[in-house]
Amino acid sequence: MPVTSTPSDAIKCAEYLFLRLYELGIRSIFGVPGDYNLRLLDFVEPAGLHWVGNCNELNAAYAADGYSRINGISALITTFGVGELSAANGVAGAYAEKAPIVHIVGTPARSLQDRRVLMHHTFATGDYRQFAAVHEQITAAQVNLVDPQTAPDKIDWVLQEALFHQLPVYIEVPDDMADALVSTDNLKRKPVLTLPHVPEAQHEDSVVKSVLGRIHSAKRPAILLDGETRGLQILDLVEKLSKQTMWPTWTTIFGKGLIDESMPNVYGIFQGKYAPESWNEYFQTADLILHSGPHLSDTNSFSFSAVPRENVTIAISQHTVRVDGVIFRDLPLRRFLTKILLGLQPSKLGAQGPPHHPSPTLYLDKSLPLTQKHFYHYINPIFHQGDIILAETGTAAHGCRQFKLPPKSRLFTAVTWLSIGYMVPAALGAALAQREILGGSGNRKDGSSGQERVVLFVGDGSLQMSVQEISTMIKEGLNITCIILNNDGYTIERAIHGRKQRYNDIASWNHAHILPLLGQQSSAMESFLQARTWGELEAIIGSAKFISGKGVRIIEVFFDQEDCEGSLREMLNEQIRNGK
Amino acid sequence: MPVTSTPSDAIKCAEYLFLRLYELGIRSIFGVPGDYNLRLLDFVEPAGLHWVGNCNELNAAYAADGYSRINGISALITTFGVGELSAANGVAGAYAEKAPIVHIVGTPARSLQDRRVLMHHTFATGDYRQFAAVHEQITAAQVNLVDPQTAPDKIDWVLQEALFHQLPVYIEVPDDMADALVSTDNLKRKPVLTLPHVPEAQHEDSVVKSVLGRIHSAKRPAILLDGETRGLQILDLVEKLSKQTMWPTWTTIFGKGLIDESMPNVYGIFQGKYAPESWNEYFQTADLILHSGPHLSDTNSFSFSAVPRENVTIAISQHTVRVDGVIFRDLPLRRFLTKILLGLQPSKLGAQGPPHHPSPTLYLDKSLPLTQKHFYHYINPIFHQGDIILAETGTAAHGCRQFKLPPKSRLFTAVTWLSIGYMVPAALGAALAQREILGGSGNRKDGSSGQERVVLFVGDGSLQMSVQEISTMIKEGLNITCIILNNDGYTIERAIHGRKQRYNDIASWNHAHILPLLGQQSSAMESFLQARTWGELEAIIGSAKFISGKGVRIIEVFFDQEDCEGSLREMLNEQIRNGK
Repeated sequence: MPVTSTPSDAIKCAEYLFLRLYELGIRSIFGVPGDYNLRLLDFVEPAGLHWVGNCNELNAAYAADGYSRINGISALITTFGVGELSAANGVAGAYAEKAPIVHIVGTPARSLQDRRVLMHHTFATGDYRQFAAVHEQITAAQVNLVDPQTAPDKIDWVLQEALFHQLPVYIEVPDDMADALVSTDNLKRKPVLTLPHVPEAQHEDSVVKSVLGRIHSAKRPAILLDGETRGLQILDLVEKLSKQTMWPTWTTIFGKGLIDESMPNVYGIFQGKYAPESWNEYFQTADLILHSGPHLSDTNSFSFSAVPRENVTIAISQHTVRVDGVIFRDLPLRRFLTKILLGLQPSKLGAQGPPHHPSPTLYLDKSLPLTQKHFYHYINPIFHQGDIILAETGTAAHGCRQFKLPPKSRLFTAVTWLSIGYMVPAALGAALAQREILGGSGNRKDGSSGQERVVLFVGDGSLQMSVQEISTMIKEGLNITCIILNNDGYTIERAIHGRKQRYNDIASWNHAHILPLLGQQSSAMESFLQARTWGELEAIIGSAKFISGKGVRIIEVFFDQEDCEGSLREMLNEQIRNGK
Repeated sequence: MPVTSTPSDAIKCAEYLFLRLYELGIRSIFGVPGDYNLRLLDFVEPAGLHWVGNCNELNAAYAADGYSRINGISALITTFGVGELSAANGVAGAYAEKAPIVHIVGTPARSLQDRRVLMHHTFATGDYRQFAAVHEQITAAQVNLVDPQTAPDKIDWVLQEALFHQLPVYIEVPDDMADALVSTDNLKRKPVLTLPHVPEAQHEDSVVKSVLGRIHSAKRPAILLDGETRGLQILDLVEKLSKQTMWPTWTTIFGKGLIDESMPNVYGIFQGKYAPESWNEYFQTADLILHSGPHLSDTNSFSFSAVPRENVTIAISQHTVRVDGVIFRDLPLRRFLTKILLGLQPSKLGAQGPPHHPSPTLYLDKSLPLTQKHFYHYINPIFHQGDIILAETGTAAHGCRQFKLPPKSRLFTAVTWLSIGYMVPAALGAALAQREILGGSGNRKDGSSGQERVVLFVGDGSLQMSVQEISTMIKEGLNITCIILNNDGYTIERAIHGRKQRYNDIASWNHAHILPLLGQQSSAMESFLQARTWGELEAIIGSAKFISGKGVRIIEVFFDQEDCEGSLREMLNEQIRNGK
């Protein structure tokens, strides 16, 4: 671990903070420089951390979110007022979908704040607390490092909160605190951020016994793996449970990509009322559903139609285990699940799941235009083991639910926050984390293993929100295949309401100029291709050099403005029936 | 005025809201569609309002701010959670610099909120009040239209607050409230938003008398016109005062462009410790300074060196008149200033101001590279009467202080909020307002008078924050000359701290591709030119066709990475002296 000063009795506050971030596995920090964070930024690279300068703070927050979902935690540095508020929506998205981000804000020097000097980046009222009040609404914990005596404990506490709750936290660092000396005492405690051991609760073994009883007596059981499982650090145990029981296992949208879909008992996403009838019948008549990491938003549960009935559910959440509607608390989950796994009696397990839903065999006329209905099956073969696939809110998010993912791949898509503009920067963040993990920490900066691949699906409307962040992908030398779904505007909104309304139109762009504008040196032919028909798409998919090439490559695919499927199609048809 | 339903006894809530906005002079609304505002958006264009779909919500808020500064007030529509939080920094900037924006947020239907349904665009906790809590920090007043009985009064009240305080306000419109019927009673009161008459305070005439006494006895008087004067609706009276007294008149940065600089007694910006010695000597020994609309941030007052001494100052603010340090309240400013003007005795006025600071005569070798020192004088002749000139935070904001503005032109630059990324969308908003005002309300949508001109100066770093909004300029057919100052990164930050630090670098872009990407149809030659030397710049300036052409035109001018002047140069030199 690189150390920028000898940890004897004293260390600079910024060094302490960045050492702690390094210990947590953070290797890159996202953000934008600003007047009140420059002195803090001086300490980033000496701490062995890579500074990713983003184009703006919202994009930086989105990128930090993407990095966090792969790396487990991330960090973001902005400047007081202007920077931190620009980042707010990105931080809030990480809150909604449980991705810990350490949001560090460089604030004016303590002497300025104490004297209420009317500095820039404030409302010139002398009030320095308003932006922290904003962050109270969108982060799990907040600290303001105003004194070297308390700074180390505050830092340790707030990082622990981020990890424990899997939520963003907020740290204010006054300009003059960056190089204030703090004690190194806390650094001697290692690993720094382990939580104290919790003695067994009195009811622990009886809950384990009762759950095992339910498991062993179940005739039509299932597992529903939801997205909060990742943050609970129990993914491996839930996968083991699925393997050992061989019970039919579905995921939610949020859970997709968190379990190996090549396992014979893994079915993909359970789409509630949109699921194949045999799946829905099984699910609705199940006598036990093990629901791991529930995240019950309308969008993640197909308007609540994929929520298991309470009286047949064992739901495992951060602070509770709910058995048939009865809530038990204070059961550390790893210990609890380990006991369940140890107690499994193979002879009492067994289930006959419904038939798998076969991928359609596609015979598509090469001269016909692309359609949403078949596009996702058609493009699916380009994915490799270990890929990170991202599908932005919009038609892409609906389509990606059909993907059959290779082992060890991951998928990000619209879950609950659904902020369009998120996915481009999130792809940057995820790709950086992937490269660091594959390249190892030793050769982090240029540590491309050549294996990492990120594939991004983004609509033309969403792209306009945050397009500039593609330049950071280029600057970082990342390998990202970016598939732009061009359907001439906000098709998802047209489906929901205002099918023919002008407010769902967007400006028409010529995407061939994206990479040349944003600094890519390669020729257009090497980095930008378009497909309107199945034949054109086939030619692109067939070019391994393009699909798996280096740098950023863009494939623009065209769809009809009203081409959509599933619930979107239902809403659109409803409008057509009503003469809209 | 277009009316979408007969105002008899009832009108739809959204119609009521948009009628009120129309009455206030709003003709365009900025924003982005989203799931919870679509039904509201259905009512925008039927109300005679032009919908400007922006690329993202932060840009929409910036554009609304720019529109407000020209039009007096503006409106912004976003969607719950994701949209409104993305806009937060833009709304906060309007708060910091007193530009009223009516921020309207489409929220989930009341039935969903009341039942705490875990909808998307929330944290899926059932709490629907967190984003309103954020906006309490950055708006002057907030209302939530949850009942048709109270909606009209709430709307009227919050709009009055926006106008009175010249600050942004926040209106939540649940999805199902857009077409709820409300009473038309309030519409019969016209003009709707006049405040009740305030009877004269007992002390009013004695304050007038005392101020007139100070005015008539002053030997070395001056006027300092600051930016909050605009929102106080007293600009005409302060200009009249300057004309009648012929006192030396300076502005602050915020006040620049608010008074006719061709008046012989108007000197331009008083730059405090950076002002010419004779100006500073006059200012510091003045026995009376009439300070209108003070806005006392560090950046607007040259680190407080341009703040007049309290004991010789009559400061006119929204709620107070301060005479030599004694504060008087409850003096409606227009009535107060009118009395002052009526009481002026010409024989007792008079002042001998310091000499004007002549613009330098420039003899620049055509082969030499451009420099910040001379660039702003050199480009100054391109400005015409009525132009709106915008200079983004950074070296551009420092340089633009030297501009000599033609009559009726306006200037926006860095005042207090200093959020880079602001100026590109602000130019869009200002240009739209300018076109509407010049074109008249009758032919608003295509009402280009051919006269309107906007000239934007933006650095390469700031540009990356919000570049996509140039596509909205193109979509709207606006005539904007966009001058990109390319100095290869954040030069202003390099000057402040971290001269050689990598965190002040940015990705390298090829700006020739901006307009082709963003939808402009014209050839590159017609819309994009570059200058590295004075000769190249001269050729561009000489092309009236280019400078005053139609559509968006970009001029890219190059400067050395460390080329800066004034306080920036001082800070940079300090770093060089310290071996940084």
